[in-house]
Amino acid sequence: MIQPLAVSMGDPAGIGPEIIAKAWDERTRRALPPFFAVGDARAVQAVWPGPICHIREPAEAAAAFDRGLPVLGVADGGEIVPGHPDVDGARCALHALELAQGLVRSGAAGALVTAPVSKAQLYQIGFTHPGQTEFVAERCGIAGENAVMMLAGPDLRVVPITTHIPLSAVPGQLTIELIAAKGRATARGLMRNFGILNPRLAFAGVNPHAGESGKIGREEIDILIPAVELLRSEGIDATGPFAADTMFHARARAGYDAAMCCYHDQALIPIKTLHFDEGVNITLGLPIVRTSPDHGTAFGIAGQNIAEPGAMIAAIAMAADAATRRAAATA
Amino acid sequence: MIQPLAVSMGDPAGIGPEIIAKAWDERTRRALPPFFAVGDARAVQAVWPGPICHIREPAEAAAAFDRGLPVLGVADGGEIVPGHPDVDGARCALHALELAQGLVRSGAAGALVTAPVSKAQLYQIGFTHPGQTEFVAERCGIAGENAVMMLAGPDLRVVPITTHIPLSAVPGQLTIELIAAKGRATARGLMRNFGILNPRLAFAGVNPHAGESGKIGREEIDILIPAVELLRSEGIDATGPFAADTMFHARARAGYDAAMCCYHDQALIPIKTLHFDEGVNITLGLPIVRTSPDHGTAFGIAGQNIAEPGAMIAAIAMAADAATRRAAATA
Repeated sequence: MIQPLAVSMGDPAGIGPEIIAKAWDERTRRALPPFFAVGDARAVQAVWPGPICHIREPAEAAAAFDRGLPVLGVADGGEIVPGHPDVDGARCALHALELAQGLVRSGAAGALVTAPVSKAQLYQIGFTHPGQTEFVAERCGIAGENAVMMLAGPDLRVVPITTHIPLSAVPGQLTIELIAAKGRATARGLMRNFGILNPRLAFAGVNPHAGESGKIGREEIDILIPAVELLRSEGIDATGPFAADTMFHARARAGYDAAMCCYHDQALIPIKTLHFDEGVNITLGLPIVRTSPDHGTAFGIAGQNIAEPGAMIAAIAMAADAATRRAAATA
Repeated sequence: MIQPLAVSMGDPAGIGPEIIAKAWDERTRRALPPFFAVGDARAVQAVWPGPICHIREPAEAAAAFDRGLPVLGVADGGEIVPGHPDVDGARCALHALELAQGLVRSGAAGALVTAPVSKAQLYQIGFTHPGQTEFVAERCGIAGENAVMMLAGPDLRVVPITTHIPLSAVPGQLTIELIAAKGRATARGLMRNFGILNPRLAFAGVNPHAGESGKIGREEIDILIPAVELLRSEGIDATGPFAADTMFHARARAGYDAAMCCYHDQALIPIKTLHFDEGVNITLGLPIVRTSPDHGTAFGIAGQNIAEPGAMIAAIAMAADAATRRAAATA
């Protein structure tokens, strides 16, 4: 039995508080394990009429979980108006993230699930990481290239090898070393978190038709093929590079456990086309389990009781599965 | 009533002959109009046991269509072995394409449907166009930037603004003029071929999250936004640029008639993820109607009677619809 999961509330003016509460509503039907929210309880009360149990430490969460949504409170988030983010809310979101990840690292909580934050607001209070993933990786003492962002839905898992950089910078960022590091971390992560014994990694080419043997770009020949060969020499079931456009239909997806993509949209377009309301972002390569719903703060619909909790529910379920598997492996 | 459609057979060693014959098998169930194949009849006989009607001119096709697959023969394709392309086959494919497009341009056939060719083989016999689309455009006297490749399935239409170039060359190729030219041709094409009165064009950003106001690349600010504004000033319902990864789920797709994409995989990944077996390539901006199934020669499965004719059937049906609509508009 794993410890209760810590769910950081994200920006209090976004849809995070609402979807966490709605996930609690679904706890029985979806067989979710005990979890607790970390953040300002008023953000939940502003958007949800259900019962809240204020807890002082994670150990109280399991007993409280049947009676209401357990909330471990952090610093006052100022005035909370759904849909209207401000720097007080950003500070609250950052404190919640800091506390939640610390509780998981200490073993008091079983896994970390993070609701979405506003990067624009965080940057105003001095946050310097590209996102929550890099923040958590640094707290865990993990170098950026060894932490891997994987997006996972029921029918597809994708890894963007490069992420939030201009398209023009992508070819220059791709190196044999980077691709191999991401491949190793992904293979290990699929074993540890998903229980896949021999993970199959399919690499996408960066150019149309995977370059057509060099006729439409050289990166496949110069970088991707050597990286795949290096991984294979290490015993990892890596294949490709393949033409990216024919990798994501049902028959093709059956041939791999994760699609390794060269850039953001190559990975995010197929996963969001197939799994827009249920995609989960899981960070591989960390000593802890960390997931998040694959969507943003959605300020435009916050406070209207129309936010879909599907991705948050999937993120909690996936985190619990992964934490259970890792606990069993080390027991 | 439009004239019979001309279907060029493509490479005789590919799956073209098989899927054309299988489309004829489905003519009643799918309510297909009369069409005839242009190519070497032996390529069909090698892979299909059904009846063939040799015709000498398109005018004989309609009467023959009930009795068998009408075939207008072209030069001997040499020895035909399914799955084993050669230069004789490439010559045969090129002659079939030349004849078929000429018959459509002359009005003897109602629309052009092209089965897949092997570019590698065509290049060996001196073919210098990037593909069949550019060949047909040149025969029609249309400049490349005014001919638009659109991929269309039941739930999505996409236009790649740039096509078979390395990813690293994409940002440099994007200009306000090119994007506006593709937008105009697409809007006109959606009106003429699909009967959409006020086509809605949604433009994808080239960078992740459409550049996040310039933080992840400048192309949206410098090129895409001005191009969209130019099109709007001309009365075209153009919107964007949008984050590409959130453009292709069902709710987003309901907001536009065509997604205008900056590069090959940005357009082809979503359409092939959604419509792998039924995607149609339609060339907009030509004086004739031209479609093709959105797949290749598939030499690996040729001659095994396992090729899916869905995309060819969809290409024939879309060509017939478009030709009927254009004939009615000019009547």
